[in-house]
Amino acid sequence: MATRLEFEIAEQPQVLRRMVEEQRPQIAAIARAIHDAQPRYAMIVARGTSDNAARYAQYTLGALAGLAVGLAAPSLTTIYHRTPRFDGALVIGISQSGRSLEPSRVLEEARQQGAAMTLSITNDAESPLAQIADHHIALNAGAERSLAASKTYTAQLMALALLAAELGGASEWDEALRRVPDWVAETFEMNEHTRAAAARYTFVSHCITLARGFNYCTGFELALKLKELTYVVAEAYSSADFHHGPKAIVQPGFPLIAIAPEGEGLHAMADSLQTFRESGADLAIISNAPEILRDARLALPIPAGIPEWLTPIVAIVPGQLLALGLSEARGVDVDSPRGLNKVTLTE
Amino acid sequence: MATRLEFEIAEQPQVLRRMVEEQRPQIAAIARAIHDAQPRYAMIVARGTSDNAARYAQYTLGALAGLAVGLAAPSLTTIYHRTPRFDGALVIGISQSGRSLEPSRVLEEARQQGAAMTLSITNDAESPLAQIADHHIALNAGAERSLAASKTYTAQLMALALLAAELGGASEWDEALRRVPDWVAETFEMNEHTRAAAARYTFVSHCITLARGFNYCTGFELALKLKELTYVVAEAYSSADFHHGPKAIVQPGFPLIAIAPEGEGLHAMADSLQTFRESGADLAIISNAPEILRDARLALPIPAGIPEWLTPIVAIVPGQLLALGLSEARGVDVDSPRGLNKVTLTE
Repeated sequence: MATRLEFEIAEQPQVLRRMVEEQRPQIAAIARAIHDAQPRYAMIVARGTSDNAARYAQYTLGALAGLAVGLAAPSLTTIYHRTPRFDGALVIGISQSGRSLEPSRVLEEARQQGAAMTLSITNDAESPLAQIADHHIALNAGAERSLAASKTYTAQLMALALLAAELGGASEWDEALRRVPDWVAETFEMNEHTRAAAARYTFVSHCITLARGFNYCTGFELALKLKELTYVVAEAYSSADFHHGPKAIVQPGFPLIAIAPEGEGLHAMADSLQTFRESGADLAIISNAPEILRDARLALPIPAGIPEWLTPIVAIVPGQLLALGLSEARGVDVDSPRGLNKVTLTE
Repeated sequence: MATRLEFEIAEQPQVLRRMVEEQRPQIAAIARAIHDAQPRYAMIVARGTSDNAARYAQYTLGALAGLAVGLAAPSLTTIYHRTPRFDGALVIGISQSGRSLEPSRVLEEARQQGAAMTLSITNDAESPLAQIADHHIALNAGAERSLAASKTYTAQLMALALLAAELGGASEWDEALRRVPDWVAETFEMNEHTRAAAARYTFVSHCITLARGFNYCTGFELALKLKELTYVVAEAYSSADFHHGPKAIVQPGFPLIAIAPEGEGLHAMADSLQTFRESGADLAIISNAPEILRDARLALPIPAGIPEWLTPIVAIVPGQLLALGLSEARGVDVDSPRGLNKVTLTE
């Protein structure tokens, strides 16, 4: 019997297609409103999977729209009651349920302070976070019943990609944006081996995910799925930070999962990957670069020709399948893993 | 024979005293310059240990000076050549050596763009990063020869604490700031057991550090020291994020190290700590709250009565001693651990 998580992972191409085809005009209108509000910078409030979408926004809104983006420290508001000044800021709250307390509290304060604009991205247009913001992007991903987020994560990335493309004013990306749902569908076909191959990690206790640039978010999201669904202690690292010491932990056989699609990010990671290969690390690689996949102990392919900035929406899919397959190999009930609640009411 | 690392850890009270007593006027002048430049927000560029100091700045400049602080994504500049707009920003580069390429490149772009102000914090006033910024804070910590940073980290925190206090215009903190060097010295006395007690982790393969709020940075810095010096896979988590799934990995005996000094951060963590205790986790705790330390399997005390926002400068010290002791128990040469170079020329 298929689990809810499997269904929701499989639904991603259609959720993404709906986002691209139906919600573009609404997102374009929000981009115009942002343009009129002239924010100096953006600050994003999010936790968990949504925080990984925020990492994507930092690179994508930075690179395409020239907008400096920071990730907020919501505890300043919720624990210390010392919200910093947000004048001139676009303050964005991201939450699947829209019912996490932190983003709502920070957006409420930001509005009262007179921030340039507040924006929320949720999968529930009736939720408090959707209601409180000046503008709202609905994910329209359908109810996500699995405790681990999948389709709402890729829908969040897609919404942010559309927003960045609109803000950047570049129609050059239109065709690529429309192709994303197909690339995701192709990725499922290319990864028919992945769920079964995940069994090689059955007795692993910890691993590291490595990425750089746009796919930094993918490293974090894959590490989170592994922790949530398989109880493997997985830590995400930028390949740049990894050289500041932590690479000392890599011994022969150490499990590394690299996310390295073609592009400048791969170029910047290539030397690291070579070093780890030479040190005997066990490398799984999510990529569309044949020469990189060839040397991996486990190759997790994605389609060729995707602009690097859009690869995060595609590259997480083999990771989701890997985590799903490993949960099966380790006998975890993915629909009710230990310790997960769908809505986390963190204060 | 004592290692360089031991000497440098032990030097911290005198380094901090020098900072408080001699560099306050210079930092006060920089605070006035920031006040005049009227930045809307701050963006910090840093890697490794310095990035953990940046995390401290996010909370401290936010809480005391009301300044919204983000951590930059330097790859936007160095890999993608797409630096976002920094107009209105205070752009801060932090680097022990001042010779890391990323902060210099980002600060250079920020200056050319007309950022409100650039500021660097380094331990070498002749370094490129010190030279390139509009203003510079020298750590004056003396040469740091050990490959793992210790005294330059606490000196960075102290510089940021002084800057936040000056920007906040609050003389109420003067006495507390002057007492920090003594609190650090007392912490050494209170942790005479810690180096030897670290042997209990000899056969650990991974662990999690947990913190919240101001001490979020301490969790990251302790995890980094453990990875650098003992090759234990240590991951830092905010106790808030930890409830979004990763807590599934905590089984009886799972090693957690919590940083939980008295204050609002501890209040926000107390339920989590109770949950983990009940689930049989192996809890080491860095704190000055007797009721919290009492229930720890390993108590790592710090002095009572430290204002929470200053505890990170003190709370890392038991962590440094723990990592040092564990490196001895595991037979690691701390003065030349695998894989560490003092200056990491990341691009």
